[in-house]
Amino acid sequence: MIEEPRYFEDHAIGEARETTGRTITETDFVVHAGHTGDFFPHHMDAEFMKSQSFGQRIAHGTMVFAIGVGLTATRINPLAFSYGYDRLRFVKPVFIGDTIRTRCSITGLEDDQKRPQFGKLTERIEVLNQRNETVLVADHLYLVERQGEWAKP
Amino acid sequence: MIEEPRYFEDHAIGEARETTGRTITETDFVVHAGHTGDFFPHHMDAEFMKSQSFGQRIAHGTMVFAIGVGLTATRINPLAFSYGYDRLRFVKPVFIGDTIRTRCSITGLEDDQKRPQFGKLTERIEVLNQRNETVLVADHLYLVERQGEWAKP
Amino acid sequence: MIEEPRYFEDHAIGEARETTGRTITETDFVVHAGHTGDFFPHHMDAEFMKSQSFGQRIAHGTMVFAIGVGLTATRINPLAFSYGYDRLRFVKPVFIGDTIRTRCSITGLEDDQKRPQFGKLTERIEVLNQRNETVLVADHLYLVERQGEWAKP
Amino acid sequence: MIEEPRYFEDHAIGEARETTGRTITETDFVVHAGHTGDFFPHHMDAEFMKSQSFGQRIAHGTMVFAIGVGLTATRINPLAFSYGYDRLRFVKPVFIGDTIRTRCSITGLEDDQKRPQFGKLTERIEVLNQRNETVLVADHLYLVERQGEWAKP
Amino acid sequence: MIEEPRYFEDHAIGEARETTGRTITETDFVVHAGHTGDFFPHHMDAEFMKSQSFGQRIAHGTMVFAIGVGLTATRINPLAFSYGYDRLRFVKPVFIGDTIRTRCSITGLEDDQKRPQFGKLTERIEVLNQRNETVLVADHLYLVERQGEWAKP
Amino acid sequence: MIEEPRYFEDHAIGEARETTGRTITETDFVVHAGHTGDFFPHHMDAEFMKSQSFGQRIAHGTMVFAIGVGLTATRINPLAFSYGYDRLRFVKPVFIGDTIRTRCSITGLEDDQKRPQFGKLTERIEVLNQRNETVLVADHLYLVERQGEWAKP
Repeated sequence: MIEEPRYFEDHAIGEARETTGRTITETDFVVHAGHTGDFFPHHMDAEFMKSQSFGQRIAHGTMVFAIGVGLTATRINPLAFSYGYDRLRFVKPVFIGDTIRTRCSITGLEDDQKRPQFGKLTERIEVLNQRNETVLVADHLYLVERQGEWAKP
Repeated sequence: MIEEPRYFEDHAIGEARETTGRTITETDFVVHAGHTGDFFPHHMDAEFMKSQSFGQRIAHGTMVFAIGVGLTATRINPLAFSYGYDRLRFVKPVFIGDTIRTRCSITGLEDDQKRPQFGKLTERIEVLNQRNETVLVADHLYLVERQGEWAKP
Repeated sequence: MIEEPRYFEDHAIGEARETTGRTITETDFVVHAGHTGDFFPHHMDAEFMKSQSFGQRIAHGTMVFAIGVGLTATRINPLAFSYGYDRLRFVKPVFIGDTIRTRCSITGLEDDQKRPQFGKLTERIEVLNQRNETVLVADHLYLVERQGEWAKP
Repeated sequence: MIEEPRYFEDHAIGEARETTGRTITETDFVVHAGHTGDFFPHHMDAEFMKSQSFGQRIAHGTMVFAIGVGLTATRINPLAFSYGYDRLRFVKPVFIGDTIRTRCSITGLEDDQKRPQFGKLTERIEVLNQRNETVLVADHLYLVERQGEWAKP
Repeated sequence: MIEEPRYFEDHAIGEARETTGRTITETDFVVHAGHTGDFFPHHMDAEFMKSQSFGQRIAHGTMVFAIGVGLTATRINPLAFSYGYDRLRFVKPVFIGDTIRTRCSITGLEDDQKRPQFGKLTERIEVLNQRNETVLVADHLYLVERQGEWAKP
Repeated sequence: MIEEPRYFEDHAIGEARETTGRTITETDFVVHAGHTGDFFPHHMDAEFMKSQSFGQRIAHGTMVFAIGVGLTATRINPLAFSYGYDRLRFVKPVFIGDTIRTRCSITGLEDDQKRPQFGKLTERIEVLNQRNETVLVADHLYLVERQGEWAKP
């Protein structure tokens, strides 16, 4: 990955980027189940899912989220600190063989009342499949260092 | 896991449960990096982290979330559908060797205006470490089938 | 999983339960080979197996056993101690894409001559595929604490 | 591995071999839990195990068995067919950092009444740790082709 | 694996052996990406590769090399020390489902001017697919102990 | 990763970059053994290695190579094609807990006699540990598209 220091002031609403794609495989389903301990039949039992409305296994929501966010991990801003997510929604199911990519755009830049040396940055995360359908959305919340006087002790 | 059908009406604010514990290992760090593609030095470079304030590698936020939620995957309610999370916050770092467990409690039960056959259930997720410190919180959002007339076609 | 303390006296011959299903994937084959170091061509070489009677790769016996037993790991009885298995038999091959589940039933309850504070419990393990064919059987042997006078020092 | 065809008649009671060693790591514990779905706190919760008699996490019995058998997978006899195990016993716990190896010895050679073209071979499996303590034993059961007239159609 | 001590003098140009086969699975692609951090779309994005000349994902060169060499790890010569490779070439792509095996042959035996107690052995590595096409070649370089006077201090 | 098209003419001898670091863990040893099937005691048997000159397990050469190269996989040049490596040497052992990073520098730019539309680029790969010792070197060979008339049909 590439390190790229950027102060709060260096960002603007609407800046966007899109990641390369990654095909979600049956392997990812099995790895995620084993990693998290969630072996629910929706993700692991192909026979059971034949009888359900989706007709096949669906990806864990936590996996689409973790891989969708992971796809963006190609640049580090050492001046930014992730502290959470808001409005994480599983919009559509992801199936074995779907190819996802992530679009990030800056949707919020606000003062932080309690920590004046930081600004609050909101990055909209949108995970898309190969049919350009949105499968997951979330707002990623960061504190980003300000360049101004606050950076000096 | 154990299947346990429960209608929206079968739930009450304040109901809670707590999972068994799981020690977060260096293996989990490596597996999560490989699973998501996030090899940021905060999670993977012990030398670099010696020079940082935490003094050691810290867990991926997405991993604490995915494993914290995975710990709860011991009972399935086939009448409940997860559609997202609100207010996911990384409260404290998780280090290699920490043991986490998850406390769930029902904090919201609301009508769903658009889908009268369902109710909206909010389950508060709180991930704790071995010192009983909260490391992650989130509100898990579900639609749960109502038992009443709506269940009939 | 769910903790459920049960004394030897709380069990009865014929009690049974059945797990949810799990589809055995090519990933499981590869993971098991890597985990155990058994890369025999019966499990790993699709070309070679085309020329054999089964026509395709077959699962490691140790994997069907380990996953078959793992499927039952949803309840812990803290008063029971597993000490081995008898009559473990590989009845039919498991192929990539088969979905297995496990049926457990109590088939033996005996006194333990050497350890009077325990009883010997035998649980019959039967792993079935999606066609309800038995693919593996074994007798799981436990010592279970007695409730009576023996529990007192 | 090395292919080495050997008929039933080519074996003798008492023949033995011993594998190279393998250190059982925390990674193996995590991989086995994820592979089988068995996340019991005995294997996964270091804090809980501090309060138990062993004082630390203990390996899954199914893992010691699967890796112990896997260590022997360096030679294939294409004339032998494994059909099961008898008297599998977990003799001592295996801890993170223990190094195990497997000793195999032929302990039984019998006629097979139903299948005269085969003989029944029993191989005693003994898994030892770095202190030469036996941690697991089992009798591995094989059918092995006879060389005699039975090999001819 | 099998330990087999062989001095430099015990080898001859032209000695060859061939390994058993191993089918390269989608799982291997995913594991290798996660193990190395190389998530290039050539290996991970099935949609993108549909538009490229190969029409499908191709294996990482480092994976074909590592698995191709790994297939040969069935015998250890404790008197030989690997110190590198020359002329490693990726001759043809490996696709998901291809079955590879490795042919090794001794192609060089030379004195080592600086270390007279060793000889330099070159082993030609050739990885083949199920159509007997060479997919990778390399020259594996070893120092091997001499038996002669040099072995004595 | 970041896509960055660069023609052969856009490169210059001496251009260099260095990756972020990655700590090589016991997990990586176990994953690499399982991925390649190489369970040699040098990598897997801590007890045996106590008696050897290194005193501890050493990393597989193929792993240091694959991860060392993987660390560089942060930028793709879609106009460059890797076709092999020369002079790959294992200079020093890598132990569990070492942190490696990779330095790449362009050391060769030559015409390709057979394919005039390409130039041959050599990138020197040097893997360093946390003490700035070189542990592995190799010359990575690429064909890179020329911008000139050759790009036109």
